[in-house]
Amino acid sequence: MEPSLATASIAKHLQSVLPATGRESLATSVLPALLDSIAAISEALRSAHHVALAGGTNAFGDDQLNVDVAAERLVREALARCDTVATASSEEDPVERTVCSGSSSSSEVYTVGFDPLDGSSIIAPNWTVGTIAGVWDGATALGSRPADAQVAAVLGVYGPRTTAIVALRGVPGQQRPVCLDLGYTASPGAGHWDIIHDKVSLVSATPPKVRYFAPANVRAAAEDRSYQDLILNYITSKYTLRYSGGLVPDLVHMLTKGHGVYLSPVTAISKAKLRRLYELCPVALVIECADGKAVDAATGEPVLDTPLAHTDERGGLICGTSDEVDRAVKSLIQRVAES
Amino acid sequence: MEPSLATASIAKHLQSVLPATGRESLATSVLPALLDSIAAISEALRSAHHVALAGGTNAFGDDQLNVDVAAERLVREALARCDTVATASSEEDPVERTVCSGSSSSSEVYTVGFDPLDGSSIIAPNWTVGTIAGVWDGATALGSRPADAQVAAVLGVYGPRTTAIVALRGVPGQQRPVCLDLGYTASPGAGHWDIIHDKVSLVSATPPKVRYFAPANVRAAAEDRSYQDLILNYITSKYTLRYSGGLVPDLVHMLTKGHGVYLSPVTAISKAKLRRLYELCPVALVIECADGKAVDAATGEPVLDTPLAHTDERGGLICGTSDEVDRAVKSLIQRVAES
Repeated sequence: MEPSLATASIAKHLQSVLPATGRESLATSVLPALLDSIAAISEALRSAHHVALAGGTNAFGDDQLNVDVAAERLVREALARCDTVATASSEEDPVERTVCSGSSSSSEVYTVGFDPLDGSSIIAPNWTVGTIAGVWDGATALGSRPADAQVAAVLGVYGPRTTAIVALRGVPGQQRPVCLDLGYTASPGAGHWDIIHDKVSLVSATPPKVRYFAPANVRAAAEDRSYQDLILNYITSKYTLRYSGGLVPDLVHMLTKGHGVYLSPVTAISKAKLRRLYELCPVALVIECADGKAVDAATGEPVLDTPLAHTDERGGLICGTSDEVDRAVKSLIQRVAES
Repeated sequence: MEPSLATASIAKHLQSVLPATGRESLATSVLPALLDSIAAISEALRSAHHVALAGGTNAFGDDQLNVDVAAERLVREALARCDTVATASSEEDPVERTVCSGSSSSSEVYTVGFDPLDGSSIIAPNWTVGTIAGVWDGATALGSRPADAQVAAVLGVYGPRTTAIVALRGVPGQQRPVCLDLGYTASPGAGHWDIIHDKVSLVSATPPKVRYFAPANVRAAAEDRSYQDLILNYITSKYTLRYSGGLVPDLVHMLTKGHGVYLSPVTAISKAKLRRLYELCPVALVIECADGKAVDAATGEPVLDTPLAHTDERGGLICGTSDEVDRAVKSLIQRVAES
């Protein structure tokens, strides 16, 4: 498949940074298709006033379809045009289903795991929400180490603008990690994606002037003293709070500012909620490609080190600027283990 | 001035809820003009990728103008078409300057105080931001009690959708308070505003399932023990945290959910930051028209009770669901006064 006009310049850039052979379709078909679907979802959301308020009923007519269902459909339609995408599964339908069955002449075969519309609790108040997708080598994401098998990830961001983060895994000697910030400009018949920043990074040459923290599920801190103490510590250390409750905007905030820590801890009472295939693995790849760290909130191990056993696995998350992640791990995991 | 096609149905609704005489121009001209400018700002923001990142330089061409400046210009251009708006002033230019000088045949005379683009720190990460405007009787907002003189307020919300809250002051025996939630649907040459909710309220018949808190400037809690204790109390009482750092999205979140408390306290070290004319008075009118409370964070007195002495006055804010505001006032002001 040729990339759409809207994604032509992005496809060209991806071709220039990916190895010369073996990833053509990732650059010219799979990632452009995901960007096309993000542009289409942003257009669908723009007029979805009643949908957002109804919270997912479709009793009022065409423009009031459940936005999650509409987003799911738009991603699947875009992937169906990619002959190297063998299967796909999503947070809405967590089964790896066949997309294309062997029509490709390419040696490339991918599966895509995605969350079509993350942040449902903040759609009604018109806050920024997002799409999350991971692209994996092979026809299944199960059984392999995500650090090896997940080759790319995309975050779509629906706010005042439509933007996206595209991350490409690093492979020593072959492929440097890439983390791009893209912006979509809508225009009748001629919308296009452009690169806004070609090196998104959580590391800066000078110490950050403002330090940010995003504590998810603070209700867990009611029972978990170590989480409560850590939050208090950020406050007394004069960190700035930014927490929207949407995983995509919360991570994109830190990526844009170049600093931050996001915490979604797991406690005895507060179970793991984030899905590994549709949320944790793609965002971990993005954070790692931006020079940050993403670890499991229960073990402190890198999210991408543990193979997936099934598509609905869940976990907690600590991610962001490396030294901030280390500090949070020390407070939330090591201290607890020692006590 | 006739309302634009985009605002015709809203103007008709406003005419039906405002008194039969004396407010024609508010319904058919001033509020429609503000809604037109909000629609125009949302379009300008949609493609302002470089602006957002550059943070206000205009060295790269037409589409990279400072977005604050562009928003300011769009509001002023819209107001210039209203022959009953005598003066206007804004957070960007805090002087009440003449807009129309006596060309009106109407007995209505208004001044508008506005913040064209609130939330500059969260524009780069593509989070929801907003516009705030208050409409006041007379050619100046200074000297009168805001509860009497400020007749309407508008919040524009730029997120995945473009929405707005419109509030009309209540006048016993003449005018019930009104708080509308509107949605804008863009369309080449034929965009339009529609009413999504005609009664936004912070009071619900049943107790809220989820209680929300939005603590602004948590760094102030580093020195202020009463603020720190209040935040901890929300956490241990299992309130849900939602804090974007944008005044408009933070308030619209609670208005949409029907519950919440927003805190921007003033402490010995953390000075008052919110501008009374451009931020506090308009949002206080919105919150009151939605059956909530908005009080000064230093005194606990209603924001709208104290006349403005000058256009650049500042203050702190506690607002939201009434019993939540009372509780916060007790913790932050009364306890401190007694100690």
